[in-house]
Amino acid sequence: MAKINEKDEQGLKYKKSQCSDWYTEVVQKTELADYAAIAGCIVFRPYSYAIWEKIREIFDKMIKETGHENAYFPLFIPERFLKKEADHFSGFIPEVAFIEKKEDDSERYALRPTSETIIYDSYAKWIRSWRDLPLLLNQWCNIVRWEVKATRPFLRTREFLWQEGHTVHISEEEAEKEVTSILSMYVDLIQNYLAIPVLTGKKTETEKFAGALRTYTLESLMPDGKALQMGTSHNLGQNFAIAFNINFVDKNMKEKYAWTTSWGISTRLIGALIMMHGDDKGLILPPKIAPIQAVIVPIYKSKNKKEILKAATKLKKKLGNFSVKIDDRDYCTPGWKFNEWEMKGVPLRIEIGPKDIKQQQAILVRRDTGEKEAVKLSIIKKIAIMKLEQIQNNLFKRAKKFLDSNIYEATNFKSFEDIIKKKKGMAKAKWCGESKCEEEIKDKTGATTRLIISGKKRVAGKCVHCSKKAKETVYFAKAY
Amino acid sequence: MAKINEKDEQGLKYKKSQCSDWYTEVVQKTELADYAAIAGCIVFRPYSYAIWEKIREIFDKMIKETGHENAYFPLFIPERFLKKEADHFSGFIPEVAFIEKKEDDSERYALRPTSETIIYDSYAKWIRSWRDLPLLLNQWCNIVRWEVKATRPFLRTREFLWQEGHTVHISEEEAEKEVTSILSMYVDLIQNYLAIPVLTGKKTETEKFAGALRTYTLESLMPDGKALQMGTSHNLGQNFAIAFNINFVDKNMKEKYAWTTSWGISTRLIGALIMMHGDDKGLILPPKIAPIQAVIVPIYKSKNKKEILKAATKLKKKLGNFSVKIDDRDYCTPGWKFNEWEMKGVPLRIEIGPKDIKQQQAILVRRDTGEKEAVKLSIIKKIAIMKLEQIQNNLFKRAKKFLDSNIYEATNFKSFEDIIKKKKGMAKAKWCGESKCEEEIKDKTGATTRLIISGKKRVAGKCVHCSKKAKETVYFAKAY
Repeated sequence: MAKINEKDEQGLKYKKSQCSDWYTEVVQKTELADYAAIAGCIVFRPYSYAIWEKIREIFDKMIKETGHENAYFPLFIPERFLKKEADHFSGFIPEVAFIEKKEDDSERYALRPTSETIIYDSYAKWIRSWRDLPLLLNQWCNIVRWEVKATRPFLRTREFLWQEGHTVHISEEEAEKEVTSILSMYVDLIQNYLAIPVLTGKKTETEKFAGALRTYTLESLMPDGKALQMGTSHNLGQNFAIAFNINFVDKNMKEKYAWTTSWGISTRLIGALIMMHGDDKGLILPPKIAPIQAVIVPIYKSKNKKEILKAATKLKKKLGNFSVKIDDRDYCTPGWKFNEWEMKGVPLRIEIGPKDIKQQQAILVRRDTGEKEAVKLSIIKKIAIMKLEQIQNNLFKRAKKFLDSNIYEATNFKSFEDIIKKKKGMAKAKWCGESKCEEEIKDKTGATTRLIISGKKRVAGKCVHCSKKAKETVYFAKAY
Repeated sequence: MAKINEKDEQGLKYKKSQCSDWYTEVVQKTELADYAAIAGCIVFRPYSYAIWEKIREIFDKMIKETGHENAYFPLFIPERFLKKEADHFSGFIPEVAFIEKKEDDSERYALRPTSETIIYDSYAKWIRSWRDLPLLLNQWCNIVRWEVKATRPFLRTREFLWQEGHTVHISEEEAEKEVTSILSMYVDLIQNYLAIPVLTGKKTETEKFAGALRTYTLESLMPDGKALQMGTSHNLGQNFAIAFNINFVDKNMKEKYAWTTSWGISTRLIGALIMMHGDDKGLILPPKIAPIQAVIVPIYKSKNKKEILKAATKLKKKLGNFSVKIDDRDYCTPGWKFNEWEMKGVPLRIEIGPKDIKQQQAILVRRDTGEKEAVKLSIIKKIAIMKLEQIQNNLFKRAKKFLDSNIYEATNFKSFEDIIKKKKGMAKAKWCGESKCEEEIKDKTGATTRLIISGKKRVAGKCVHCSKKAKETVYFAKAY
């Protein structure tokens, strides 16, 4: 019997400033996810899965419009495939899970930690001439990485969901174009839909994807001062093409190795959404990605219930094709419902009661600002759409302001340490370009290079740490 | 260099009547799937994955409209969960794959062969009172069954894709209603979109799902005389609820065990599509499920190429929102293209050349009948839509005629054997209802009970095999 009463405890125990406890509590109380019986795995409950479906729908449309197609390759990868590209193998092996060998299995099979190798085995068979290129495939699937580090829902789990694009091109130039074009689609998705501002640039040699020529990344800064990698796009050069023998006959009938790319975003983005926008009351979901964009809470007693619910249904119809839910549960008070939908981060709440009906209006309440407004039913659709747009823009603006005001330029190592340890921000600093120095910085401060900003520009001055001649300007931060 | 020439071999070596060889050739030559480096696994190439996406889109809409939500549960299932429901465990264990234990793993993890057990572990935590019911979840995911039988693309592979619905209800009646309502959605999907007629009914005790109270099935008869199970919907009774302790407090504050159901369709449906509709030339895809519904083949020489391609593009625009592809490859002849798209089963081919442009027309060719018709451009959209509808209906009609004319009533065991072995059909026969007799029939003829047709009606007469009093009327057939 205790079960029912437990459910009555409402709201959050932890404040947003208690980052990790708040995060864990929000994830579970809003029913985004639950822990599974397997350590390090989670259940994506309908509320988070619906967000993932939205992300998938948006990005899937973008890639299909640019000529990409979806496919599905096996979950299993022969161990010998993983070993073919040496850097790739050493990068992934610590977290690879294998299946128990059955009697008739001649070799050991891994569960995909990423699918370059199994996909390239097929590509080598399929690609014969320049006519088969570019080959632009993508797959939406589950990934297994048997993490030894502490796991956290969405951010680091032993199984997660993602998309992985794998393309093949006739030239480095074309591959590079693909990699940057995908990067800008990711920027579009993350900034314009998830309302999270990102920094983009190249990874250092240490931080790049195992086996890549160059990795481009999207990084955001979370409110706790840690950077979160939001997605990556890799120019794999000819490394994998050589290892897997992906060659083609060009227009001059010459056999050449192809150039390949891979790129991915994962359910980790849901973790970013939670951290970036949430507050002490719970989640705040950007309207463009919210499974429920507006919730109508009818305020009634038993005598006027029928009338009010009828008005609520009429209102829902009037609002048309955005995603609206009527909360008509009899066993909760309106106040309880307000709190619940606030905790669940629904962007807009619409209250309608007997007084409102008399005045042909409803009350709109914004989740991001708490601002309340009585709006005439005759113009409510227009106003609701406008408010959703305002919320979307406001969330991005707020997050952008946070990011901008937490990037500091470090001119010497003392200020660098101060930025990372005290200010909990991101340090923009000059760097010598050497991996050894990068590692020392990490050992001393916990900060890693997030991305190289300088591009092809020459950098003047000295390395913030070792004082040797600087080669790059880099963002440093602690990271998830 | 040999690579290019290989590709020039066009068309199929095998006839449809050479069932198994034809099937394997069609699957590979049409680029639906390819064999993977792991025995028993396939690669879903874009052409088959696009069909799966269509199936998913159609069925996902149906279940969402009836209040179901999607979620995602872990790939991994603790071995002890599988053991909790004894029948379930013994039914699945031969084909379960486990992952190698890592140092810190306290138990053995299986890869999901189906997800009842891992899902019910969560349900037991989430469900407290009647207010939480019904719980109507579904997941789209990959499934691993380490088959020991010979595998075949789409029909039986060690990994496949499916949806699995898992619902919880307050009463047997409600669970039964769910199970039959899902069954009719499956009928709708398979008959009205895939154009495959099905027989529906209950499975026998021997053939039902491991752990179920009752299993309902959809069966179709393939052209080679073997039945194919197209989907199943299980009323699991309280078996799993008791094993996993899924209980709830009802309106009278009494604690009760819940009733659960599960139901699924898989990428096996793609195999059914291939076998059911294909012919000696290759695939024939029903328009409602075809990734490409019409292909425009422009007929040009270099001097009029620009003009003809312009007309083709204009025509594509005119056809509007169905899925049309222009095949503008310079390095293939129109004849080569005709054969390729016929092999790939595109329902409608549209030829447009200089003569057609002069006469403001294009040539429409139906894949199912080969029928050609010159159609004025001014009415081409209307006619194309009409023809697609005709093709859809014709494919279903053809398949239905085949099914109907291959079901025979068996009045004695000699005629029964004749139906199964010589006529390669489905036998409708009376049966005593005993598993032992069912097994003997299987041993003697290879035929299994596909479904019980009689329902609650009383059956008069004798069992076709043992001559004891009949209890049921049943369809028997050899099966995939």
